Amino acid sequence: MVKYLIPALILSIVGCQPQSQEQSVKHEAGPITLVIHGGAGTIRRENMTPEKEAAYHAALKTALDSGYAILEKGGKSVDAVIAAIKVMEDSPLFNAGKGAVFTNEGKNELDASIMDGSNLMAGAVAGVTTIKNPITAAHAVMTKSEHVMMIGRGAEIFAEEQGCEIVHPTYFFDSARYKSLMKAKENENDKSALLYDPYIKDQKFGTVGAVALDQYGNMAAGTSTGGMTNKKYGRVGDAPIIGAGTYADNNSCGISATGWGEFFIRLGVARDIAALVEYKGYSIQQAADSVVMKKLPKLGGDGGVIVLDRQGNFALTFCSEGMYRGHINKKGEAKTFIYKD
Amino acid sequence: MVKYLIPALILSIVGCQPQSQEQSVKHEAGPITLVIHGGAGTIRRENMTPEKEAAYHAALKTALDSGYAILEKGGKSVDAVIAAIKVMEDSPLFNAGKGAVFTNEGKNELDASIMDGSNLMAGAVAGVTTIKNPITAAHAVMTKSEHVMMIGRGAEIFAEEQGCEIVHPTYFFDSARYKSLMKAKENENDKSALLYDPYIKDQKFGTVGAVALDQYGNMAAGTSTGGMTNKKYGRVGDAPIIGAGTYADNNSCGISATGWGEFFIRLGVARDIAALVEYKGYSIQQAADSVVMKKLPKLGGDGGVIVLDRQGNFALTFCSEGMYRGHINKKGEAKTFIYKD
Repeated sequence: MVKYLIPALILSIVGCQPQSQEQSVKHEAGPITLVIHGGAGTIRRENMTPEKEAAYHAALKTALDSGYAILEKGGKSVDAVIAAIKVMEDSPLFNAGKGAVFTNEGKNELDASIMDGSNLMAGAVAGVTTIKNPITAAHAVMTKSEHVMMIGRGAEIFAEEQGCEIVHPTYFFDSARYKSLMKAKENENDKSALLYDPYIKDQKFGTVGAVALDQYGNMAAGTSTGGMTNKKYGRVGDAPIIGAGTYADNNSCGISATGWGEFFIRLGVARDIAALVEYKGYSIQQAADSVVMKKLPKLGGDGGVIVLDRQGNFALTFCSEGMYRGHINKKGEAKTFIYKD
Repeated sequence: MVKYLIPALILSIVGCQPQSQEQSVKHEAGPITLVIHGGAGTIRRENMTPEKEAAYHAALKTALDSGYAILEKGGKSVDAVIAAIKVMEDSPLFNAGKGAVFTNEGKNELDASIMDGSNLMAGAVAGVTTIKNPITAAHAVMTKSEHVMMIGRGAEIFAEEQGCEIVHPTYFFDSARYKSLMKAKENENDKSALLYDPYIKDQKFGTVGAVALDQYGNMAAGTSTGGMTNKKYGRVGDAPIIGAGTYADNNSCGISATGWGEFFIRLGVARDIAALVEYKGYSIQQAADSVVMKKLPKLGGDGGVIVLDRQGNFALTFCSEGMYRGHINKKGEAKTFIYKD
């Protein structure tokens, strides 16, 4: 505990004495970096229009700017992760928050998780239907409860008590996403169509995430999703599973994943990447490649990860056709991408 | 995929041709081993009676015998794990299945998970209230669905469809456990009492688990729990989280954990032990010690793990006062334990 108390004390002193903050920033500020993703899948140029592409780039850029503004002002990596993810949750373009896909029952069930690499605190919610920004509920679980994971109605009640914005489930209704559900239901008996249709496959991998490094050298990572189109039975994917979809540890790196969640849980993708960095001395790129480009396709899964280390190095790695992604690197340069090239 | 198909093919040939089974067993049979736990916590001699001790030893022995009988007959490690856990779920002595503790709302919410180390298949259920043996529901998720984790009512409907035994929630009622809830509620405002009272603390760590090695060299691990007394808000602990409470991989080892679940999720205890074995070349004892005796207490958590490798070596490691546990080693010797010594 002791080693985690010291940075916490420094932060609280900074918080209480704004005059000394600037000084301490000037002397101690390390590099700041933010990486984000908006889901990976069968994203192909031929299915895109220039307008759609521009809309995705713009949404990613807004998310980056929102998170980076916090880091620039000397804010914490956890808060930058929340800010970036909230922008993507509020956009109908991504399968998270507002843009969540529909379950088999025609509902939108949302999952999210967040982790603070400075003290290994973590929070997650799964199967919630009334929380506008599930990432804020995950953060409330992390900071306001003694628990890490809460599910269903209990999680909703807790989030409301903690002041998270509650919306009517119809807030998440989107006619294009609803049409996707209808299409998936038409093909329901044809299992191979459900699994391998490129359009459905694309839908499976909708998730958003962010990993940040603040000037205090602390990592944080978060992930949020609207799940899988036509999913049944209260299925939970990797997004709210600490160690699968999200992990952050100052001793190694921060990770947020997007992809076919079941494979990410089975491999413990996020925890495994952190372990390869810590125990085998892999660079984050080597670790991401080992898990996402080798182990994951070998099992039959696909998707991608964003990984960031304490020096501000990052890897945006995926074995699917594309991944909505972006970064603002330690030089302050912002870039957003959709396809492989 | 290919490397996993070969053992699967061998197994299915064995299954279809019973005459050749014995031959193949004689030629190929490797060591078989089973380890189990029935929860870790503040288990003190002074709070025990000889009768109570004897009842625990007897229940552990029955669980071991039940699982080992399957391994001896040439059965699979997954089936041995289920058999051993079912015995403990059916006993009121352990906080799982029949003996589950009560939530703040006076309900019994059960969680379980299972993993097959030969192909990294996994299944889990959380927050179920009507399934007599949650470990069988986790197994159904693993083998009969394309998902890994299902929660709440959806998981119950799926389990029922798959033929798992359904009971009325009153099946789980136990007056002694209910009194524990009342005691915990009395101390609710005194947070330190809730956290540090040895009696409550003991209740927190109720979980059962098993790890098996079959003669085909395949590992499996499973965990089942009735949660935390007086828990609120649909809290989920480590037991149903693949990588936290349960992990199994033929490349490293099988693990089942019991303890203060939140800390086990934050560390990714099971996945971390597997990673230390695979990436750092640690023995399973070194790996268990590194995570359970060092990292876990450092964060403020406690509890224990059982770990088994493919050679039949095992570690039963805990940093709490005691852990109900037992093994049948590769020589066929059975032993059960409660305290440290």
